[in-house]
Order: sequence, then C-alpha cells, then structure tokens
Amino acid sequence: MNSKYARYCEHLARHADLSGALGVLSWDKEVNMPPRGAPFRTRQLATLEGLAHQTFTDPEFQRLVQDLLADDSLDAFQKRNVELTWRDLQRIARLDQDFVEERSRLVSLAYFSWLEARDLNDYARFQPALQRLVELKRREAELLGYEDHPYDALLEEFEPGLRVRFLEPLFERVKGELRPFAQALRSSPQPQNDFLYQPYPRHKQWDLGLKLLRAIGYDFDAGRQDLSPHPFTISFSPEDVRVTTRIDENNLAEMVWSCIHEGGHALYEQGLPPEHYGLPAAAAASLGIHESQSRLWENHVGRSRPFWEKFYPLLQETFPENLQGVSLDTFYRGINRVEPSLIRTESDEIHYHFHVLIRYELEKQLLEGSLQTQDLRDAWNERYTEYLGIAIPDDNRGVLQDIHWAHGSFGYFPTYSLGSFYAAQFFAAAERALPDLEDQIRQGRFAPLLEWLRASIHRHGRIHDPGELCRRVTGEELNFDYFLEYARKKFGAIYAGEAGVHASS
Amino acid sequence: MNSKYARYCEHLARHADLSGALGVLSWDKEVNMPPRGAPFRTRQLATLEGLAHQTFTDPEFQRLVQDLLADDSLDAFQKRNVELTWRDLQRIARLDQDFVEERSRLVSLAYFSWLEARDLNDYARFQPALQRLVELKRREAELLGYEDHPYDALLEEFEPGLRVRFLEPLFERVKGELRPFAQALRSSPQPQNDFLYQPYPRHKQWDLGLKLLRAIGYDFDAGRQDLSPHPFTISFSPEDVRVTTRIDENNLAEMVWSCIHEGGHALYEQGLPPEHYGLPAAAAASLGIHESQSRLWENHVGRSRPFWEKFYPLLQETFPENLQGVSLDTFYRGINRVEPSLIRTESDEIHYHFHVLIRYELEKQLLEGSLQTQDLRDAWNERYTEYLGIAIPDDNRGVLQDIHWAHGSFGYFPTYSLGSFYAAQFFAAAERALPDLEDQIRQGRFAPLLEWLRASIHRHGRIHDPGELCRRVTGEELNFDYFLEYARKKFGAIYAGEAGVHASS
Repeated sequence: MNSKYARYCEHLARHADLSGALGVLSWDKEVNMPPRGAPFRTRQLATLEGLAHQTFTDPEFQRLVQDLLADDSLDAFQKRNVELTWRDLQRIARLDQDFVEERSRLVSLAYFSWLEARDLNDYARFQPALQRLVELKRREAELLGYEDHPYDALLEEFEPGLRVRFLEPLFERVKGELRPFAQALRSSPQPQNDFLYQPYPRHKQWDLGLKLLRAIGYDFDAGRQDLSPHPFTISFSPEDVRVTTRIDENNLAEMVWSCIHEGGHALYEQGLPPEHYGLPAAAAASLGIHESQSRLWENHVGRSRPFWEKFYPLLQETFPENLQGVSLDTFYRGINRVEPSLIRTESDEIHYHFHVLIRYELEKQLLEGSLQTQDLRDAWNERYTEYLGIAIPDDNRGVLQDIHWAHGSFGYFPTYSLGSFYAAQFFAAAERALPDLEDQIRQGRFAPLLEWLRASIHRHGRIHDPGELCRRVTGEELNFDYFLEYARKKFGAIYAGEAGVHASS
Repeated sequence: MNSKYARYCEHLARHADLSGALGVLSWDKEVNMPPRGAPFRTRQLATLEGLAHQTFTDPEFQRLVQDLLADDSLDAFQKRNVELTWRDLQRIARLDQDFVEERSRLVSLAYFSWLEARDLNDYARFQPALQRLVELKRREAELLGYEDHPYDALLEEFEPGLRVRFLEPLFERVKGELRPFAQALRSSPQPQNDFLYQPYPRHKQWDLGLKLLRAIGYDFDAGRQDLSPHPFTISFSPEDVRVTTRIDENNLAEMVWSCIHEGGHALYEQGLPPEHYGLPAAAAASLGIHESQSRLWENHVGRSRPFWEKFYPLLQETFPENLQGVSLDTFYRGINRVEPSLIRTESDEIHYHFHVLIRYELEKQLLEGSLQTQDLRDAWNERYTEYLGIAIPDDNRGVLQDIHWAHGSFGYFPTYSLGSFYAAQFFAAAERALPDLEDQIRQGRFAPLLEWLRASIHRHGRIHDPGELCRRVTGEELNFDYFLEYARKKFGAIYAGEAGVHASS
C-alpha cells in the first residue's frame, strides 16, 4: 500500500479511537454514571472532544490529505475516501479547538439544565441554557458558511447535501397530502388498543426485548442492551455497538418498538466494514439513511402483520393475563392505531411527521432569529393545536420532551422524516429483490432481508452520498410517493377492516 | 493566582481528564464489554495512553514546571505540588510515547492471553505473552534507571522511595517471626467455618454488600457497585469512584470481605480533595497507603468482634437457613480461621503475607533474569510447598490466579504486605486518637473513624511521601511490630478460646 495512504488510514484510525472513547464516556454518562459524577465527566468529554478535533484537523494531516488528492496511484476506493475526508476537513477545520470545547461544555450544561427542567416540568428552567446554545449554533452556522439559509449549514452535518430548499417541498407534501389522510383516519372508528396499556412485568418485558433483538439478527457478541431514560444506539467500533431501551410497566408498546427501532440502527452499525475502521467507508452514510434502517425494522417489519403472525404466539404465551383473549387481528390493528399523540416517540407512523415538521419549523426560526427562545413554548403549543389538533398539558409532554436541543442537535429532526421516507422506498426495493420477503418475515427468517440491506447499504459506509445511494438501491431519487402509497395501503386496509367491524356491530 | 501556576493546574487537569477517560474505558472493558469488542478497545486504550503520556511529558509543560520550580512567589503547598510533578516528569519522561503505546498493547494482549490460559487452566498458554511482558519490563527498568536492583525502578512506580534493600529485612521478619506463629496456630484445633460455605442466594448477597458499603460510609451518589470477574476499585474523579465485587453462591466470605476491602479503597478515593483535581495533592500517596485503607476496613474493622456485634443480627436475619444455629462467637472465630489457602485473596490475615512473599521473590528473580518464565510454574509450586506447606493442584489455583502480571504490574505485590503493616500501625494510632473507637464500631458508627482517616490521610493526597505520612500520622517509621502485636493478640485470643472449647469438649 502507498505509504502516505497507510499513514492517512492510521491517522483516521487514531481519530476513531478517540471517537470510540468519547462514545464510551457518553454511553456511561447516560447508563451508569452516579449523579455527582457529572461535572468532571463534562470536563473529560470536552477535553476528549477537543483532542479529537485537534487530531482530525491537524495541519500535517491536512497536508497529507491534500497530497493524496493529487496522487494518481490511488485506486477508486482509496480516492473516494480521501475526497470525503477532504470534504469533512473543509467543513470542520472552520471550527477551532476552543469553539469545539466550548460547545462540548455548553452541551453538557444544557443537558443537565434540561434534566432539571424535566424534573420541575418547567421549560423556563431550560430556556437560558437553550438560549446560549442557540446563539452558539448561530455562530457555528456562520463559521461553517452556507448559501441560502443558516439552517443549511447545520443540516449538512447530519445529511450531506440536504438543504432547506429540498425540505420545503417535501414538508409541503406532508402538509398537503398526509394531513388530509390523517384527518380521514381520525374520523373513522378507532381500533381497540387498551390491551397494550396494562401491567406488563418488567423482567418479562426485558427478556422479550432481548429475544426480539436476537431474532432480527443483532449480535450480542458485539453489543449489549441496557436501560436508560432515553433509548439510543451507540457504536464504539463495529464490534461493540450498544443499544438501550426503557421499560414502562404499564405500556408494552414503548419497549417493544423502541427495541426493534434501536435494533435497526444497531444492525447498520454492526454491518459497517470493520476492516476500514476510521475511514469514511466505515461510517454511516447519513442520519437519514441511519433512520431508514431503524424505521424499516420498526415499522415495515415490526409493525407488519406477517411479523406478528410469527411472534404473537410467543407474546401471548409470555403475557397470558394480558393477551389471552386478544386475537392476532385485534392486536395487529391495535398496534397500528392512528391518533395524534403528545409524544413524538410514541406517535403512530402518520402523525409522526407532524411532530417532525413542528420541530423543523421551530428550529429553523430559532436559527434565523424570527423566533426567540422565550417564545418557544407558546409557539410549540400553538403548532400542536394547529397540526395535530391537540392541547399540550405541560412542558414535559410538550417542548421539553426531546433531548436533541439539549444535545445541541439542530438540523437533526428532519432526518427522522427522511428516514421514514427512505425506509418505504428501500423496503419496496427489498420486496422486488426478495419476492419471498413476506413469507420469510412470517417465518421469522430475517437473514435474507438483513443480507440484502448489508450488501445494498451497510457495507458501503459513506462511499455513496445519500442521494446516490438511494439511486443505486432503488433506481431513483428519494420519492415521497413510496411512503404515501405504503401508508394508504396499510392504514386504508386496517381502517376499512375497522369500519367493517364497526358497521356490523 | 500566579498565571503560570494556573496554567500548570489546567494542564494537569487536562491530563487527569485523559486518565479519567482511560479509567472509564478500562472499567467498561472488565464490567460490560461484549467479547468481540476487545481488539478495538485495545487500540483505543493504547491511543489514549499514548496521548496521556504525550500530554504529561509535553516539552512546553516541562519548561513551565521547571520555571515554577524557581518561582519564589509560590506558597508551600503550590511548591510541593510542582516538586512532585517535576519528580514524576524526571521519571516518566524517560519513556517515550511509542514505548508507552507498545506497553499498553502488550498488556492488553497479555490480559486476553491470561483469560484464555485461565479458561484452559494451563499456564503454558500464558507463558509466551508473559515472556514478552517480562522483557518489556526489563527494558522499562533500564529506561527508568536504578541504583541497586532493576526491581527498584518498578517499585518506585507504586511506592515512592521503596527499595529492595528496605523490603529484604521486612520479609525476613515475615519469615522469621510470622512463620513460626502461623505454624503454631496451624497445629492448634481449628474453629469451625463450614457455615460460610453453604448456598447463599445471589441477590441477597448483592443487597447485603450494598448495605455494608453504605454502612461504612461509601457514597453511592459518587459511585456505584457492579459485578466483575475480579473485584477492583477505580476512580474517574473523586466524584465518581466505582467498586466491583463477585458473588459465589456457595461462599459468603468472598463477597462480604471483598466489598469491605474495595469499600476501603473507595473511601480513600472519595476522600481526595476534588478542588485539586489533577494535582499531586489530589492523588493517593502510594499503593501501600491505598492498601492500608482497604486492609484497615477489611480486617481491623470488618473482621473484628465489635463490627459483627452490630451486623451479625442482620446477617442472621438475612440468611436464617444458614446462620440461625451459629452463635456470634462461633461466627467470629470462623471468619478468622487461620489456615494455608491456595488463593491469595481468600487467605487469612497471617498466611496472606507468604502469598505476597512468594510473588515478590519470583518477580524479582524474573526481572534480574535468575528465573525464566518457562520455569515459573515449577518455582511457584515449590515455594508454596516450602512456605505454606501445600501442594498446588492446578495452574488456576496456582501461578495463574492473579491478574497483576497480565496487567504488566511488577513491583505491585509488595505493597499488599506494606498495606497490612501500615494498616495495623494506623489503626493503633486511631485507637489512641479515638478512645471510644471500639464502642463506635460496636454501634455501627463509622463516621468518627472515617473522619479521622480523612483528616490524617485522605485529604493530603500525595503531599507527604508515604514514609513521612506514616511519621505524621503515627509518630514513627513503618514498624512491623504493630502488625505482629495485633496478630498475636487477636489470633492468640481466638485460638486460646478454641483450645479452651476443645479442652472442655
């Protein structure tokens, strides 16, 4: 191997070592850390982030990458990695180490201030920290640069190439086409789902979660599941990818679909090529693509009828007190009930996108300065009335519900909707590639689907930009029609059935 | 504050951030990490260790410290910190970053090779890795430099000022005075202790361990307990000090005294002054002093009669099936039974020092080259026959039992005996300072003892060298007489009682 290229690989591997270490410290912070550990952990995270940034933007490394850009002896794969690193450098080198460490500290402070505000159920406690974060993010957008809108600078971090001008027409279709569909479903008779909200013993839920993860192919030799207040997936390397879940003893749904959702994320990370550790080729393509994997498993697999044809007998066996008298059909309809909810993560597949739309609109406004953090709660509550027709009873079920802003993640939310839309398009492609897919799911054989995802998506890391990846896997650009068609077919059938039940009752 | 001194503090705090991060990664490796995570974790640890070393030995920082050495504006406390840092630098700067990273990798490899050898119960599997480590440690001793013996260079890391020439006369007393005492006890009738080796349910043991930790003053808001194959204490900061234990369902003793032992270590770490984070003033004085804290709590408190006057009723209540018919007196004698054991960590307080002596002799010989790793198993087994009069049945209960060599820790074992001897001397001083100590322990009131330890030892960090600290706390140098007197009094009484019971039965 070209010795300069080898040095490039080793430097990125060292950078990945620091990212992995940061991952361990963050994971521990949310899973294990005792309360008094916070201030020193905050320091430690900031120092490591500064060092990771310093390592990545090291001037000698930048020269090395620049040399390699002009090096004709590289093969196409090597060349592409180098180009992607160069693109990252162009962007990241605009932030200096002090800025990165300040951001890390502010994010930690905001996180603890958010936790405190949650305890008191009072947005006002979080507002000052959020204000500082918003100002910092504005500065970050200016440092990073953009053409049309400061929000674009932040979108780029999560979804290369994504811009406000691409999101606007997409969310217009959400408003114009998905909203009337949701309204139609809401006015139909609702399937029963009270059986999900009964006492389900904690340890049995835990065991079930592990079984579901194992069933879809999550490898416990290269990962583990723990409990945390907010479920997440984190990777320290492709050989150590961890998921967390939470268990509410009076709500089976939360644990089941959070497990499958995080499992989908984890399958992606476990499928990235370990031999390219540290290179762009070993990183996820984007957050939108990441989310497509979690949503594909959560919704297209985990909320499908074939899936529960396989697993419902196990579920009934595990929780006979709750489910003995509930038919598979009732169960399937119940878990797909469509109705506006206060909490994004508990939302049905349709209303979900209005939650995202609201956050998208609000954070874009915060960034451009047309909305102030002091007015955020009111703006939040008004939009929930407008888009979902519901009143927000308190801040914890309103503006304080998600951790993202406290994490300093602005520009992240839109990738949730993108992920669902990608998922529908990818799943349609999988159905074309695997004509037996439905039967395989019915038999609990997920290996062919996973293998198809690995070959089509996981193994390529970031080699293809999200748009290009989508074209390669599905033959076309991201197309909202797939999601719309999937939703109309699935929920149309469920609600037609429900209407039938209603008519005959 | 002097701005140079402030920079010095901030640099050391950044170094402490990296040490803390290393701690989290190591803790996670032993407590949580899935099996496949090992190779990348090995890389990540090595990179972080290299960076920590680079940070500490940074030439600009060295110049800053040198400037401060000559700075008359510093107060005595500042001056002492700077001097200690200079001493560390003089030592550590002799190792370069490559050496430190190589050592980190070799240690990780040796660790996994040791785990494999343990699985197969075969020292031969571990020998090649150990051989490489011994060679590396010899190189390290040469790089670090020494006057009399290469082993001195390694002792210095764990116990500043400790030398072979100080240890020889100490271990001569162990051989000359402790050995005949141990032999005398062995030839007396033995107290009963079979009640300790019955089924004790796992979760009840776990809960009991937490109660004991809480009782002695361990702060769970700044720490937590987990399970690991080998109990240990680790500190990421004075506000996050973690302990681990292990539970054998057929052995109550292991969990109980490992909890109290690690708790003693943790109380020391939790008592270091957080406001001096990163400075020598916030680090433990030495491993010998560290071990004095764990042994003091484990033996002088946790194996004393007053302690169990308080806690035995709770124990009987928790495990009525095992202990209903066992009197406090029988229990107290049973937990202090003196008899040679195969495993160091399960040893009584007397024979313990022969375990340490053997390791001390063997590792000194390995270092000087008068013993080869190929012959280590035989040498081990011979000495156990000689010093403890027992035959080693297999490698796991012999030469493979301890993790230290696999961790590259040579020169560590002697601090275990030093710790016990310091503990006896410190406890005697505590008894003089706190005339009610025995009654306080009998009432489960440990705060006065802990406060005395905090004021006399913990709060000073490394400000005093171990020898000086001992003089300040006890009025004299380390003196083996205290341990000998404690042992003779305690075990003399127990075995006299036992002989009495025997005579009258």
